[in-house]
Amino acid sequence: MEREQAAGRYTIGLDFGTLSARAVLLRLSDGEIAAEEEAVYAHGVMEDSLPDGTALPGTGWALQDPADYLDCLRDCVQGVMEKSGCSPEQVVGLGVDFTSCTLLPTEEDLTPLCCREVYRSDPHAYVKLWKHHRADGCARRLNRLAAQRGERWLSRYGGRISGEWLLPKAMELLEEAPALYRAAGRIIEAGDWVVSKLCGTERRSACQAGYKAAWNADTGYPSEDFLEALAPGLGSLPRKLGQEILPVGSRAGGLCEDMAGRLGLLPGTAVAAAVIDAHASVPGCGVGEAGELLMILGTSSCHMLLSRQERAAAGLCGCVRDGILPGFFGYEAGQSCVGDHFAWFMENCLPARYEREAAERGLSPYRLLGEKIAGRPPEAHGLTALDWWGGVRSPLMDFSLSGLLAGLTLRTKPEDIYQALVEATAYGARKIIEVYETSGLPVSRIAATGGIAAKDPAVMQIYADVCGREIRAAGGGQSGARGSAILAALAAGPDLSGYEDAPSAVRALGDRGERFFRPDPARARSYDGLYKTYDALYTHFGEGPGAEQLHRLHRIQQGAAVD
Amino acid sequence: MEREQAAGRYTIGLDFGTLSARAVLLRLSDGEIAAEEEAVYAHGVMEDSLPDGTALPGTGWALQDPADYLDCLRDCVQGVMEKSGCSPEQVVGLGVDFTSCTLLPTEEDLTPLCCREVYRSDPHAYVKLWKHHRADGCARRLNRLAAQRGERWLSRYGGRISGEWLLPKAMELLEEAPALYRAAGRIIEAGDWVVSKLCGTERRSACQAGYKAAWNADTGYPSEDFLEALAPGLGSLPRKLGQEILPVGSRAGGLCEDMAGRLGLLPGTAVAAAVIDAHASVPGCGVGEAGELLMILGTSSCHMLLSRQERAAAGLCGCVRDGILPGFFGYEAGQSCVGDHFAWFMENCLPARYEREAAERGLSPYRLLGEKIAGRPPEAHGLTALDWWGGVRSPLMDFSLSGLLAGLTLRTKPEDIYQALVEATAYGARKIIEVYETSGLPVSRIAATGGIAAKDPAVMQIYADVCGREIRAAGGGQSGARGSAILAALAAGPDLSGYEDAPSAVRALGDRGERFFRPDPARARSYDGLYKTYDALYTHFGEGPGAEQLHRLHRIQQGAAVD
Repeated sequence: MEREQAAGRYTIGLDFGTLSARAVLLRLSDGEIAAEEEAVYAHGVMEDSLPDGTALPGTGWALQDPADYLDCLRDCVQGVMEKSGCSPEQVVGLGVDFTSCTLLPTEEDLTPLCCREVYRSDPHAYVKLWKHHRADGCARRLNRLAAQRGERWLSRYGGRISGEWLLPKAMELLEEAPALYRAAGRIIEAGDWVVSKLCGTERRSACQAGYKAAWNADTGYPSEDFLEALAPGLGSLPRKLGQEILPVGSRAGGLCEDMAGRLGLLPGTAVAAAVIDAHASVPGCGVGEAGELLMILGTSSCHMLLSRQERAAAGLCGCVRDGILPGFFGYEAGQSCVGDHFAWFMENCLPARYEREAAERGLSPYRLLGEKIAGRPPEAHGLTALDWWGGVRSPLMDFSLSGLLAGLTLRTKPEDIYQALVEATAYGARKIIEVYETSGLPVSRIAATGGIAAKDPAVMQIYADVCGREIRAAGGGQSGARGSAILAALAAGPDLSGYEDAPSAVRALGDRGERFFRPDPARARSYDGLYKTYDALYTHFGEGPGAEQLHRLHRIQQGAAVD
Repeated sequence: MEREQAAGRYTIGLDFGTLSARAVLLRLSDGEIAAEEEAVYAHGVMEDSLPDGTALPGTGWALQDPADYLDCLRDCVQGVMEKSGCSPEQVVGLGVDFTSCTLLPTEEDLTPLCCREVYRSDPHAYVKLWKHHRADGCARRLNRLAAQRGERWLSRYGGRISGEWLLPKAMELLEEAPALYRAAGRIIEAGDWVVSKLCGTERRSACQAGYKAAWNADTGYPSEDFLEALAPGLGSLPRKLGQEILPVGSRAGGLCEDMAGRLGLLPGTAVAAAVIDAHASVPGCGVGEAGELLMILGTSSCHMLLSRQERAAAGLCGCVRDGILPGFFGYEAGQSCVGDHFAWFMENCLPARYEREAAERGLSPYRLLGEKIAGRPPEAHGLTALDWWGGVRSPLMDFSLSGLLAGLTLRTKPEDIYQALVEATAYGARKIIEVYETSGLPVSRIAATGGIAAKDPAVMQIYADVCGREIRAAGGGQSGARGSAILAALAAGPDLSGYEDAPSAVRALGDRGERFFRPDPARARSYDGLYKTYDALYTHFGEGPGAEQLHRLHRIQQGAAVD
């Protein structure tokens, strides 16, 4: 019945990444992608200079021009419409996901400050991308003060706010460019800004506010009192942020006349509340039931779990009601460094003879190493690594820790180290699953997406064996845009989409990715044993006396004198 | 006065290595090497087959033909005599050092069993070189039983006899070839055998007996009771070994008629008791006073200390009175893996771009890495390694431990790991110095020899900085042969050599190697601080709960199932 109702209807999902935007046109009857389009931001990521040539002082900048978003939005929507031959009447909704935290200061009417001539040469007037890294000092002060004051919201983020998130970035704006901070009537996530432009009025989402701005449906943002104590003047920040916060999957509004004309769609078409790109992957990958976990395995990893329960768990990155799908508490945990370990190995540890072998056989180094470790027994090398090359996000939330390799002998080969690194990241994932479960959040099914899930079967098999769980690889390259299109279907409502609720929409429209990695019982048993050594090292160096030594090495790496 | 007396007089030092023998003709007036010669063993090291073509079963064999030693002895002596134009009257002594433990079964009259037609095809009739590795199982049984019975001699070797040494090798002979063991009237070190051939009668040295056969001047060999309990029949072993044991530097005898004729020297010329090659390096490098330490830095390392005191120190490899120089207790400690770490790194961790850089600049990889770390501050990388890739000899005597790298980050470069490995071996050397000193054996001066001391100034400077001590690089390529020639001078006696005692002979004739590495005060202070982290890891993983984890990894590496 649902399928019939949805016949001939489509939604558009828009996925705004770091360098480009992509759109898919999703057929609501069967979840087929009828067309896709990509458009690259004209100004890319500005790290050295502004569009007018102004050089950026120092390092760590990652700015964007918001006009690029609207250009790409238009090109993407027009692209899928042209390619598919769909008529505007067939499109019943639009959804937008956006890489986050991507912060934009605007006037009260949402005009970006960088569009005003007077601010064209001020870097702080532009979008600050998630990877803009100049607010780490602000984040440290924020975390210290919040811990001192016992701010309760801090525990929802595992005790630590990242320098990539909204509060430290707003604090940076206030302290580095106070006049511009005052001139900014609104401070808004780029995803919310695009949705607001589509609706012609300001609309904000629980996803961005909850995961990146320490907002909570019951208690709102951190108090003005706290913010003022943190940085005089910052108490005004909540008034610049949205007060009305929409659940993910809700209808933010109807497409305004102006944008409908620009995009070639009908005015009033449902627009969904914005969502963070990673979070859009959850429905995009067909994950829509309580107890389902999606691991996004890339340079870093993100472990998102849906639950009907609210639970406190130490070391999570966030828990937001209606933050991933309506009707669920969406939990997020993360490993700061996964594929980055493997890239480090390829860059720094790949001997010349391996590079030659890969070149002669026409393989990438990843493929070569994948071959060397595929199917090897867990006992092949007797190494144990701690996967802390980039510090530890979940569950320890300690970025002053660093990596460790134990068990090295004269017979240790490069592929042994590589396998140990892969296993260590899998042990790290297992730790996170254990934290969820011991916190009263059972994990009944696991799906994985991201570059590693798509490309590296040897790594995925190790994850399945280490976790002792079946893992379904899902999503391919468009899980974000597909997820946004599913949320657009929810925003359009059951009458137009044919789907009564989130689980049924996800079941029908999410990527069904039928590639399963199943644990081998013997290997899983071996990994259960080897995990004990990982656990012993983890406890000693993460929570025991060994942490003091790693902290000491970290201080030295940061340039401190040896004490 | 000494110099005048010695004018025109010479001794010959012979240094028998793994593949060749070398001789130096040493001028006693000033320590100049008047001539040198080298001769290669015709049969080299037999690892796969015997001279008659008999294939060796399995792996781990390292056999030699003792006839090669006498051929090379003749060629070397004749070579230096011819090159120098010396007359036989000018040669007042011969000294022999030999790589050890190098074991030879012979008849009562010292005829090697392999020279008898009936045994030509039996591998056990040949010389077993130090690196013959088929007696490790015997060594394990021996160590276990000795520990159970509380055998007191075990503590002189740090609680562990190596499978390379005499007792396990004799045990292997008994168990693998019992008839041949019974036929062997004598079981003798190759160094002692050469000296016995020179003298025409059996002569054995305290150096080989003390360091490799668990012999002690006061208590002799391990008891027949112990040996019989270890392996029925082995109780007869002491009767096959020498009972009269000569101090190092003493006169084993005069050159016999037969050998004098073959070598072109005078009958009756003094022959010194044999010595192990590493131990001959001590006088060879000009180390001849109490409190002086010689570090021999090669693939592994040996730390030999002279003292007038007898002290028990846990984790030493041996303490033998008159074992290195007459009048001293000679202490030996060792690191099982030093240069081997660096070779492992070059083999397994050198990225292609570094190999290319070395090739383009015409440097060896060692030279390139040496350049990259030379002069870098101790704080450059923030890594700490445990130098246990080959287990730990002194002071922990635990070969089930393995190596560790801590502090790894995404910014860690190959040269950081290399520098950490160099520093770790230096920390290991510092540990040994500390063990000596806390055991009541002060170390007043340090010399270093071996490949690393000769070729790698960046490494040597790190040793000086880490140990906070001046280190004199000495010895060049002939320190063993030079040391043997000095011991020959002692054997010839003061009337002929002009030297009253060992210290004065060593002072005059030892290598003066005037290349000093002096600690930089600031760097030494930093290393004092960094050593605390090494020490914390050392304690946790060497003596604390971490050892259990490394032992577990070792069992897995040995093929055990994961428990």
